[in-house]
Amino acid sequence: MSRVEIEKKIQSENDRLAIENRKVFAEAGVLVLNIISSPGSGKTTLLEATLDRLADKMNVVVIEGDVSTERDMDRVRAHGASGIQINTGGGCHLSAKMVGAVLGQLDLGSAELVFIENVGNLICPSTYDLGEDIRMVLLSTTEGDDKPMKYPSIFHEASVAVLNKIDLLPHLTYDVEKVKKEIRVLNPDSEILELSATTGEGVDAWVEWILVKLREKKSTQT
Amino acid sequence: MSRVEIEKKIQSENDRLAIENRKVFAEAGVLVLNIISSPGSGKTTLLEATLDRLADKMNVVVIEGDVSTERDMDRVRAHGASGIQINTGGGCHLSAKMVGAVLGQLDLGSAELVFIENVGNLICPSTYDLGEDIRMVLLSTTEGDDKPMKYPSIFHEASVAVLNKIDLLPHLTYDVEKVKKEIRVLNPDSEILELSATTGEGVDAWVEWILVKLREKKSTQT
Repeated sequence: MSRVEIEKKIQSENDRLAIENRKVFAEAGVLVLNIISSPGSGKTTLLEATLDRLADKMNVVVIEGDVSTERDMDRVRAHGASGIQINTGGGCHLSAKMVGAVLGQLDLGSAELVFIENVGNLICPSTYDLGEDIRMVLLSTTEGDDKPMKYPSIFHEASVAVLNKIDLLPHLTYDVEKVKKEIRVLNPDSEILELSATTGEGVDAWVEWILVKLREKKSTQT
Repeated sequence: MSRVEIEKKIQSENDRLAIENRKVFAEAGVLVLNIISSPGSGKTTLLEATLDRLADKMNVVVIEGDVSTERDMDRVRAHGASGIQINTGGGCHLSAKMVGAVLGQLDLGSAELVFIENVGNLICPSTYDLGEDIRMVLLSTTEGDDKPMKYPSIFHEASVAVLNKIDLLPHLTYDVEKVKKEIRVLNPDSEILELSATTGEGVDAWVEWILVKLREKKSTQT
């Protein structure tokens, strides 16, 4: 079997397992977000800020993906989430199989929201469906304003793009409008939010955006 | 053939082709650096600042790796480099084969230095030898000070780590000493440099570091 054939087989096996995960999530009635970004864009910091606003209102589960260490899981636990850390060894993305293997260990029955923090990587995770409702790309101002066209797949696949670290804009050369324009060329339906997970600017609007999606999901299920 | 067997075959084929590339570079008498980082750590900006200090003294060739676009090659050409852009499509790293395929199109005979800017990715490129003399990891202060232990392979493989964006330290919570300590745990022999490619702080020392390596290489060849 050639490499291309193996890749196709892996992708179709992943799609099959993602459908299984999606069934489990639907039975539990949870909304699931798969968060994808470069290393250091602020995925975990955004989860901390989000949990600070939601953890006393509802149970939130986090599935943490990393090459190595439990650091991110320790951080989100300290902000009120339950969940589990997946270490991929050298693997550059989570797969539906890895996520499916831990679902039995999660308290999905009492939860309303599940965040999957993918491995820090703007390329590999983009086409791996994990069974989520929303695939989200996080990008940060400090990465430079040329990224969407250089990493087109994830911006094409994600239904929402969140621009983080807007508090640092005064210290950078960064054209927010150029970035939005590139995202919309790659995906005209993409929603775009701007925030700073560190200062909290825009985080309330982000949390409200999630709650609207949660209400929409619940209304389609009843 | 299983996926693991295919991966092993790819890696050993890559190692074989890297030896071929290394012969071509040695015959041309050039020093070759393979630069690896996350998207947006400042690889291209550092190359621009480096070329501003070297391009009038010697011919510098740049091999640019990206998923998509010619943007980075356009930028380094404007600062005096010759070279070529490799687009990987969806591929998350350069390979010895991709680099070998373009060597005939480069003016290596008149050059002294070759920079290979790898695809923006802190995971995939770490174990792919391209035939370089020096594998370098670039990290930036805005990515957070927890990265080495979370992405151990590249810090283990790289002989030099360069910390970029030190000009933004006053606006961040970032422990430089903690990062250096983690790098040295992963690789006790790693050299570590600090700079800002934007303000130029530390860039002269970085360029001097390269020139020392170039003189060392030339002295072993004669």
